[in-house]
Amino acid sequence: MHRTRVRVVEDALDANNTIARANRDDFDRSSTRVVNFMSAPGAGKTSLLERVLPELGGIRAGVLEGDVQGSMDADRLASLHVPVTQINTDAGFGGECHLDANMVRSALPSLPLADIDLLVIENVGNLVCPAEFRVGEDARVMVCSVTEGEDKPLKYPLMFRTCDLVLINKVDLLPHLEFDLDKLLYNLEAVHPGVDRMLVSARTGEGVDDWRDWLSALLEPVGAPA
Amino acid sequence: MHRTRVRVVEDALDANNTIARANRDDFDRSSTRVVNFMSAPGAGKTSLLERVLPELGGIRAGVLEGDVQGSMDADRLASLHVPVTQINTDAGFGGECHLDANMVRSALPSLPLADIDLLVIENVGNLVCPAEFRVGEDARVMVCSVTEGEDKPLKYPLMFRTCDLVLINKVDLLPHLEFDLDKLLYNLEAVHPGVDRMLVSARTGEGVDDWRDWLSALLEPVGAPA
Repeated sequence: MHRTRVRVVEDALDANNTIARANRDDFDRSSTRVVNFMSAPGAGKTSLLERVLPELGGIRAGVLEGDVQGSMDADRLASLHVPVTQINTDAGFGGECHLDANMVRSALPSLPLADIDLLVIENVGNLVCPAEFRVGEDARVMVCSVTEGEDKPLKYPLMFRTCDLVLINKVDLLPHLEFDLDKLLYNLEAVHPGVDRMLVSARTGEGVDDWRDWLSALLEPVGAPA
Repeated sequence: MHRTRVRVVEDALDANNTIARANRDDFDRSSTRVVNFMSAPGAGKTSLLERVLPELGGIRAGVLEGDVQGSMDADRLASLHVPVTQINTDAGFGGECHLDANMVRSALPSLPLADIDLLVIENVGNLVCPAEFRVGEDARVMVCSVTEGEDKPLKYPLMFRTCDLVLINKVDLLPHLEFDLDKLLYNLEAVHPGVDRMLVSARTGEGVDDWRDWLSALLEPVGAPA
C-alpha cells in the first residue's frame, strides 16, 4: 500500500518535470526569465512585488498569480500596469495547495510572453508542496518573514534548500519582536549554506534596491559573467 | 483525465473519513476530547500551547505534534510535562503538508489515551490541505496572526469555514502594524458567520484565559448544556 503510494507520487513528479521542461522551452524561445516566488501565507510576496515591479526600469515584467480562490492579489498588481494572469487552483485543479507545471502551462496562452522579459509566478502561500513542483522557472525566490520565528528553515527544509534567494521580510518590525536574526541566519546556513539572502521591508522599502539588482542580473544574457 | 483525478481525490477523502471515524470511536471510548489545531507556519500554535497547557487545572492534556521534519515543537512542549508524541510526515508519509486520519491512527498506540482528557493535535503549518482532512477531532481551532494581513479568510476560505474557533494571535503587535482589525473581522464574518473568535497574544498572555475556558467547556459531558 505504502509502496504503491510512493510510486504514484514519483510518477506524478516525473510527469510534472516533463511539463516543466516544455514550459521552460517556451520561456527560452521568447527569452523570458522566470522566477517562482514562494512563501508562507501573509509573508509579504504581493507587497514586495508592489514595491519592486515599478523599479525595474526598462525590464518588461509580467505576473502569474496563483491562489486557491479569488483574485485579490492580481487586482492589487494590475494597478501597476503589468500584465497579470490569475490561476485559481480550485477551478479545475481540485483546490491544490501549490502550483504545478501543468497549471502554469494552462495559463501560458493568456500571457504575452513575447513582450515579457521577466515573469514572476507568485505561488500559493505554503512552505511545503510548492517546493516539490518545478514549473519551468530559472530561479526560485522565497520570502521568510521575521514574524514567523527563527525555526522555519529547520521545519521546512526543502523550501529553503531549493531556493536561490531568501528575502527576509518585515525587518522594520524587528525592534518590536523577540526575534534573534543571527539564529535565523544560522539555521538558514545549516539548511542551505551560502544561499543568497537579503533583509527587506515591503513597508519601508529597505532592501528593495538590492532585490531589484538581483532580478536585473537574472536577465543578463546566458553565458555572461554572473 | 480531470474526471479521473477528481475521483481519486474523492476516494482518498472517503477513505480518510472512514479512518477518522475509527479514531473518533477510540477517542470516545477513552472519553478523550480532541482538538485539531491549525494555522499558517509561524502563526504561534506552539507558543499558545505553551501558554494554555499549564493553565488547564485538573484537565489532563496530551499533544500529538505534526511536522514535516524534526521535533523542535515537541521538545518545547515536553518541558511542560504533558505526554507529547511526534508525527513526521516525511517519514513514511511522503513529506505530506498536512496530517490525515491514517497518520494520526498510526500514532495512537504511543498515546496514553486512557490518561488524557484533552488531546491537542498540532497540525502541519499550512492553511490549505489540513482543512480537507478530518482526523477524528471534536473541534477545530485555528490561529490567524495579525501579521499575516486582513485578507486571509478570503484567500483560504475552507480553513476558516470549517473551524470552530479562530484565535487572532499577536495582538500585542497591533500598535506597530498597518492592520485593520475590523476588516479582518468583516472578512471572517463573510466566510464563517458567527464563528467563535478571540483576540490573543502568546507573548503577553492576553486572551489565554478565555481560550482555556473554551477548551474546558469542550470537556463538559456530552448532552450537558453548552
